[in-house]
Amino acid sequence: MARARERVAALIGADPREIVFTGCATEANNLAILGVAEALRRRGRHLITSAVEHPAVARPMEHLRGHGWDLTVLPVDGYGRVSPEDLAHALRDDTVLVSVMHANNEVGTLQPIAELATLARARGVLFHTDAAQSAGKIPVDVDALGVDLLTIAGHKLYAPKGVGALYFRRGTPLVPIQLGAGHEQGLRPGTENVPHIVDLGAAAELARAGLPQGTDRLRERRDALHQRLAAAVPGLVLNGHPDERLPNTRNLSFPGVNGRDLLARSPRVAASVGSACHKEGAGVSGVLGAMGASPERALGAVRLSLGEPTTENEIRQSADALIAAWRALAPQ
Amino acid sequence: MARARERVAALIGADPREIVFTGCATEANNLAILGVAEALRRRGRHLITSAVEHPAVARPMEHLRGHGWDLTVLPVDGYGRVSPEDLAHALRDDTVLVSVMHANNEVGTLQPIAELATLARARGVLFHTDAAQSAGKIPVDVDALGVDLLTIAGHKLYAPKGVGALYFRRGTPLVPIQLGAGHEQGLRPGTENVPHIVDLGAAAELARAGLPQGTDRLRERRDALHQRLAAAVPGLVLNGHPDERLPNTRNLSFPGVNGRDLLARSPRVAASVGSACHKEGAGVSGVLGAMGASPERALGAVRLSLGEPTTENEIRQSADALIAAWRALAPQ
Repeated sequence: MARARERVAALIGADPREIVFTGCATEANNLAILGVAEALRRRGRHLITSAVEHPAVARPMEHLRGHGWDLTVLPVDGYGRVSPEDLAHALRDDTVLVSVMHANNEVGTLQPIAELATLARARGVLFHTDAAQSAGKIPVDVDALGVDLLTIAGHKLYAPKGVGALYFRRGTPLVPIQLGAGHEQGLRPGTENVPHIVDLGAAAELARAGLPQGTDRLRERRDALHQRLAAAVPGLVLNGHPDERLPNTRNLSFPGVNGRDLLARSPRVAASVGSACHKEGAGVSGVLGAMGASPERALGAVRLSLGEPTTENEIRQSADALIAAWRALAPQ
Repeated sequence: MARARERVAALIGADPREIVFTGCATEANNLAILGVAEALRRRGRHLITSAVEHPAVARPMEHLRGHGWDLTVLPVDGYGRVSPEDLAHALRDDTVLVSVMHANNEVGTLQPIAELATLARARGVLFHTDAAQSAGKIPVDVDALGVDLLTIAGHKLYAPKGVGALYFRRGTPLVPIQLGAGHEQGLRPGTENVPHIVDLGAAAELARAGLPQGTDRLRERRDALHQRLAAAVPGLVLNGHPDERLPNTRNLSFPGVNGRDLLARSPRVAASVGSACHKEGAGVSGVLGAMGASPERALGAVRLSLGEPTTENEIRQSADALIAAWRALAPQ
């Protein structure tokens, strides 16, 4: 476990003592938000987050709003980005925590975390970022980002499902959200998941060794997929920022069709219309809604994610399957 | 995961829909206690527990006491048992939850859970038991016990570390303690630990198939260990109830010596003076203290646990090592 802690810390430029292992990234996000809020509840009762967070951040924030905290939810622009000016205006003397995700889980847009964290710090306000989507895919350094707390998801790094980690800068006021014996510096009691933690350490080491070549390779393949689709589907729209984004995802809106129908017709393409973590009702993505996407564009959206093992051949086959499905479904 | 849920439910006579998988037994205990307290906080603010609980129950209870709840801590007798009469007197109109462990983690004593739960139910009060130590080692049936909530620890059943489960009787008011997406009926968000959950299911199935023969075998070997020690160590004292106890553990006080020194002199015996979950400071066990053990008896205590793979030869070797260590240390 000590080696795993060193490796996870090394991936994000932290000290091993600043890493708490958890059962999943959701738990790490809850520990950051509920743990800081409880620790600082006498200092102030104002929290800030964004309109495009994962439920593992949005719901603890809403829970606190229901228990006497004030909550400001920052809007995003058409690319899904929070504006530093908006954060500057939202910060108050009683603000205790800002939480804005590093990369969006649906559209892949990167937030200007370093700028946002600098603003919070200048006001003495703690800054948390959910880096579940970015750690291991792009360089993530807690000092370059200037964050006080940062969440890592094991399975997004190719560790098994069921492990996560929270980085907390030394001295950050934090209390545990589940109580028991003294494991993990008293911050996360419970018998540790030793095998998964060791796996997470190994995955962090592999990810660190593979950056930035892995990032470049992912980006090239993803762009090849996008180009192949764009050449065959007039009116294909990219959702999210064109440059400030994860290298491995594309969220694309296919014109004139429903993304769900499109995927149902391409069963060999493992993709989704939104996040796996959301109930997929009839509604469209809240993230695209927050970005101001039209209902038609939101309905036609498909999230395509590549992984380290994705081959060029798989990309060609996936693109061809999606193109055939779109041609069959789109109004002529 | 569906099959694992069926298997864990079958081990304790429950319905699969009454099982929530968690990251460890500590989390299951926290979910039961903090989740019921939050769900029922408008009904009443009184909780009852025992003086010999694991920190994963005792500390959430103390946390609630610090946040406006009344807490009654029931004493135990010289065997470590809670008296049903004491519970009957402690129950109040505003009591919302009783939590008493099934088997003690240090001395192995079984609590009269069926009697205690019947008393609570007659007053409309929910009953939780931490069965981390007992599930898989002795028959555990939620209906025979009459409990509303019951905690299972994966690694105590030979599943890997890092998984647990909470049984909750259908209709039990319960809210999640960490917030996020809708996994596990909304009671435990976060990407599920699929491999460990599958393992827990397999372990539950093996445990169920091995009962009661496994119980008898463990009891025979444990008794052989005890007899060999008692024949050589005059004044050896059994801590805990002689009959109402787990089949696999013995907590024994060696006269005239410190248990810690005894184990230091028998390095091939993997045992402890208390629970692995407690900081082992200079102090003696809180469980033995609650049982009224003298300081000398508490200091001389050693917890010996057998497992399913423990052989007769290992038992002989362990007994001989402990006897030799005692002879070297005890005042002549």
